[in-house]
Amino acid sequence: MGVRALGLPERLPTAAGLPERVTIWEVGPRDGLQNESSVVPVEVKLEFLDRLAMSGLTTVEATSFVRPEWVPQLADAETLLERLSPLDGVRYPVLVPNRRGLERALAAGVSDIAVFASATETFARRNLNSGLDEQFAMFEPVVTRARAEGLDVRGYVSMCFGDPWEGPVDPGQVVRVGRRLLDLGCTQLSLGDTVGVATAGSVEALLDAFTADGVDVGVLAVHFHDTYGQALANTLAALRRGVTTVDASAGGLGGCPYAESATGNLATEDLVWMLEGLGVRHGVDLDALVDASVWMAGQLGRPSPSRVVRALAG
Amino acid sequence: MGVRALGLPERLPTAAGLPERVTIWEVGPRDGLQNESSVVPVEVKLEFLDRLAMSGLTTVEATSFVRPEWVPQLADAETLLERLSPLDGVRYPVLVPNRRGLERALAAGVSDIAVFASATETFARRNLNSGLDEQFAMFEPVVTRARAEGLDVRGYVSMCFGDPWEGPVDPGQVVRVGRRLLDLGCTQLSLGDTVGVATAGSVEALLDAFTADGVDVGVLAVHFHDTYGQALANTLAALRRGVTTVDASAGGLGGCPYAESATGNLATEDLVWMLEGLGVRHGVDLDALVDASVWMAGQLGRPSPSRVVRALAG
Repeated sequence: MGVRALGLPERLPTAAGLPERVTIWEVGPRDGLQNESSVVPVEVKLEFLDRLAMSGLTTVEATSFVRPEWVPQLADAETLLERLSPLDGVRYPVLVPNRRGLERALAAGVSDIAVFASATETFARRNLNSGLDEQFAMFEPVVTRARAEGLDVRGYVSMCFGDPWEGPVDPGQVVRVGRRLLDLGCTQLSLGDTVGVATAGSVEALLDAFTADGVDVGVLAVHFHDTYGQALANTLAALRRGVTTVDASAGGLGGCPYAESATGNLATEDLVWMLEGLGVRHGVDLDALVDASVWMAGQLGRPSPSRVVRALAG
Repeated sequence: MGVRALGLPERLPTAAGLPERVTIWEVGPRDGLQNESSVVPVEVKLEFLDRLAMSGLTTVEATSFVRPEWVPQLADAETLLERLSPLDGVRYPVLVPNRRGLERALAAGVSDIAVFASATETFARRNLNSGLDEQFAMFEPVVTRARAEGLDVRGYVSMCFGDPWEGPVDPGQVVRVGRRLLDLGCTQLSLGDTVGVATAGSVEALLDAFTADGVDVGVLAVHFHDTYGQALANTLAALRRGVTTVDASAGGLGGCPYAESATGNLATEDLVWMLEGLGVRHGVDLDALVDASVWMAGQLGRPSPSRVVRALAG
């Protein structure tokens, strides 16, 4: 049964108080596949990227230039980018953990990178092998050189709301981390609820703390996990605060392999369904996207956790 | 890992624009178990009701007085109510489809009933064996007599946003159905998205249509299904419009056996998590509720679909 038959009107005016258009930052091929226990063949990744771009997604995070022994799932980053046929108008950012990763990414000809920071001391030590303040020394040469090369640089800020070791995270601390990344030259921040504990009120509080600090909401993206079922409600709260870039993972792939209970990225299909109903333009053909996720689930040998995928593919 | 450790602050002020307190109308024992293929023993139902009430839920829909051959899962309604030890301060409404059901409910000593109406012609014919306009003739003697006996009467309005046969449903049509039920004497309406197609914007539009018609938002409850992952975002939109009664099903049990793809009631735990984070009072002990749902899932032999239950019980 198609979307239209199930009650979504053909075209709606944008609901009051929401942005007219949202950019979906698709993280499935990187954040999703990074978290798979099996290594997906590069041909499958390439077809996945093609299908996602063909569905209308304009930003598809392609891979990560981490050390292959850390994340063997993405050890084929060079081969992947070499064989990728980029679709016109689509950006394929890559994650870059350090200077060495940046050199590999530059050699591969990328034009968008992302660095991955932590909002908490404990997660910085566990995931980055660095302290909360020391992490910036690691990012500084990466961001400086990337910007000098004309690249856009996204700064992921993880554990923005809570952390399994430290509990609730003070918005002021997150703003300080984000501000440092912007000062280094990052062009966008992605505020991540890595363990899924945020609710709509804490989302609003964090966004308000950033705008009170003079940060334009236009440089803020949100990245929610559905661990406690809150991802879409949190996204709605963020849209009402003017956020126009939302991270999501096709079919709900992925999570974070280094954080307990950090399962379940927001599924891109569930996000598209909501945006469609709210009259917020997103540019994605939902049927094509569902097809891509069903196909990928078949490659992985397990069903998609996305509710929309399960409902439409059922 | 407990809730507090995962980042929910101990106590929050209510987020701006939201009600201070919400009543959760728990539908698991009726709407949930009605949709199970197996028949749950009455002893299990009684323990489930006790556990739900002990967790702090103050409204627990207990069963349905439908004809036993229609819904064999709830054929033990009389026995259940006879053996139930009601907890002080807890209401145990029952669903009553017709005059005969009401007589059975009255004989069992209930003080709260609910009738089940349709917002669409097709679903009225399929589920109620009646037309859209004719359904009121069926409800009229039920509601009149129940009110004369001093009972509270909830009117469920199903298919309020879309219907698999008719597509999108005009809010004006839903308001007319709701208005008829209120005029008959219903004391509350539960606006149901039976197939889960609503998004936040259509929720706001429907609630606005009711208030424009002079209906006090205080008599409106919302009943969302998570078929497309929208239930919690829709609930947030409804709370912002002043709704203070929200239907949910412990552990996400249930759906509607007569509507294709109508799976997945909003899980009470996911709702409680959001309310807790928003500083909206609800009176429920989440750990006790999760325990009840895990126990019930064990009785049913399958895991709970609630994300909070899976995360906290994992």
